[in-house]
Amino acid sequence: MSKDKVIRMEHGAGGEPMQALIRDLILNNITNKSAGPVGLDDLDDGATINIANTMDGSKKCDEIVITTDSHVIKPPFFPDSNIGRLAVSGTVNDLAVMGAAPLALTCAIVVPEGFELESFEKIIKSMNAAAEEVGVPIIAGDTKTVERNGLDSIIINTTGIGIAGDVIRDSGLCPGDKIILTGTIGDHGISLLAHREGFDFSTDLVSDVAPLWNMIRAVIPIRNVEGKPAISAMKDPTRGGLAGALNEMAQKSGTGIIIHQRDLPIKESVSSACEMLGIDPLEVANEGKAIICVKAEHAEEALSIIRNHKYGRDAAIIGEATDGHSGKVLMKTIIGSMRYVDIPTGDLIPRIC
Amino acid sequence: MSKDKVIRMEHGAGGEPMQALIRDLILNNITNKSAGPVGLDDLDDGATINIANTMDGSKKCDEIVITTDSHVIKPPFFPDSNIGRLAVSGTVNDLAVMGAAPLALTCAIVVPEGFELESFEKIIKSMNAAAEEVGVPIIAGDTKTVERNGLDSIIINTTGIGIAGDVIRDSGLCPGDKIILTGTIGDHGISLLAHREGFDFSTDLVSDVAPLWNMIRAVIPIRNVEGKPAISAMKDPTRGGLAGALNEMAQKSGTGIIIHQRDLPIKESVSSACEMLGIDPLEVANEGKAIICVKAEHAEEALSIIRNHKYGRDAAIIGEATDGHSGKVLMKTIIGSMRYVDIPTGDLIPRIC
Repeated sequence: MSKDKVIRMEHGAGGEPMQALIRDLILNNITNKSAGPVGLDDLDDGATINIANTMDGSKKCDEIVITTDSHVIKPPFFPDSNIGRLAVSGTVNDLAVMGAAPLALTCAIVVPEGFELESFEKIIKSMNAAAEEVGVPIIAGDTKTVERNGLDSIIINTTGIGIAGDVIRDSGLCPGDKIILTGTIGDHGISLLAHREGFDFSTDLVSDVAPLWNMIRAVIPIRNVEGKPAISAMKDPTRGGLAGALNEMAQKSGTGIIIHQRDLPIKESVSSACEMLGIDPLEVANEGKAIICVKAEHAEEALSIIRNHKYGRDAAIIGEATDGHSGKVLMKTIIGSMRYVDIPTGDLIPRIC
Repeated sequence: MSKDKVIRMEHGAGGEPMQALIRDLILNNITNKSAGPVGLDDLDDGATINIANTMDGSKKCDEIVITTDSHVIKPPFFPDSNIGRLAVSGTVNDLAVMGAAPLALTCAIVVPEGFELESFEKIIKSMNAAAEEVGVPIIAGDTKTVERNGLDSIIINTTGIGIAGDVIRDSGLCPGDKIILTGTIGDHGISLLAHREGFDFSTDLVSDVAPLWNMIRAVIPIRNVEGKPAISAMKDPTRGGLAGALNEMAQKSGTGIIIHQRDLPIKESVSSACEMLGIDPLEVANEGKAIICVKAEHAEEALSIIRNHKYGRDAAIIGEATDGHSGKVLMKTIIGSMRYVDIPTGDLIPRIC
């Protein structure tokens, strides 16, 4: 941080510069950072609020989970989707990977003058469709306008409130756990890039933006013989891609992670586009995928449930957590060698979420 | 709405065009709009979530209140304050006027590349100071960067979760209730305008941005002999100013409102600046003031409590609700005539909240 005097694009890219900005200028300057077991310092997908302690607290209440995201994406419309579906899905998914059923969303829009009302309405309709898919109401909002020379596209903040019986953390990984990825990587990032830059990699590649709660809720009840949850950790690989999310999970839990390149679900069109552009598909953002870590003995059961859902048809067990290589992610390549999967360092491809 | 094809600045100004946009393009396109007694259609300062119904629900729980605001203000630093204090205060106040103690805030920042890190840190420190004033933790966040040609200043979304024993609505006004304004009008808008445009109206005029929960919490417990709350309605007069807020309260409750010009607290510097610029001070945004409606027999008690607080020293009873003039606001002028106080129709002064 010390060498920077101004914000750079990398400060919002999900890698090390963003972590440094958040740690040095935000976390260091906030005094009160929690209202329950999971707070700002945890840098999880959301935080928890202990309502029971605030009310009369005589019985164990479920945990309230809250998460917020401001969505900036250019262009706001992209193959098969738009920023409205992205905003709702992103927030629903942040709740879902914490094991929380979405209770309600808020939506705050900042829109430049000159933005077409027809596009505005399409975005709202897409928000509604995504919210309806998982049955979550949109209960409060805010609309601000900005002069056209001050902002060049629409920005949508969605904040979500959820409720969880057992909060699932991104830090809960244990050695031996299997790692399930719920679908192919890189679809959102590469389809958006192709659309924006006018590349024609493939006619059928579309963004994967989707609200995953209905799929994730089906695996949360899996329990071992002692009645303990079989799911140990979850996270959605958005900014920073699979590489960013897995590294965070490894660091927070202190376990190592080994993934197998041959088992990674990836579309041929994404793979060849990444090769052509020199982009690592592990670092490309996804918006309709989740990493689900599960006790080994329940991995096949969880995989089967996920594959039964329309958003999980390409799901695969991509690796496992290990005792060794604490805090690191390794990949066994197709040719059998091992390589470290590093934390993305910058803004490798144009902002896509 | 029908004549417009694109967003105009007025669509975010708090007046009729904004109401039409929200009604026609947002409310009409959202299917599920509530998770409790107060939802999106109510267009109140926040919404409620019925946690008791979601959990096992055997006892009456207090109500969870949620509110969201994206703050866009240029310049982000202004006399005595900045966008950070504004963002926290605005959200705390939206909870407070619903009778809700702030439990937790989230903060999502969108910042352009090139923004100075020193300014960024000052803003975070101001957010923290405002949050500390009312003891609310900031528990979740998000940081996004945007190319410098896509955005010209920082945007901060704050979403607040609160808890209320009795939710107070902006629609609860009854004929006979007294209307208390907690301080002088127009300070924020006029000080910001003077600062931005380089006018030198006064050396001592500063923005009034402040988190009002500690003041408001002191009047909420006032009860009548039957144990019912003496406070019937509250609202903070931000966008659209006092004129906008009072009209909304009159329309929603179906009562009339009469205010007395001679009782309106207004600084001499604000009054003369408004006269010089041809601005109606009733339409200027405030960020540290609340309208508190109270049963007549408890008005003096409430006023005295409010005046004891540092943010309420200039508080005054400015008028009352009436049976007649249903849904309208009238002002008895200093010379004794009556005039309608209309809903602001456009963006009369540059955006200041």
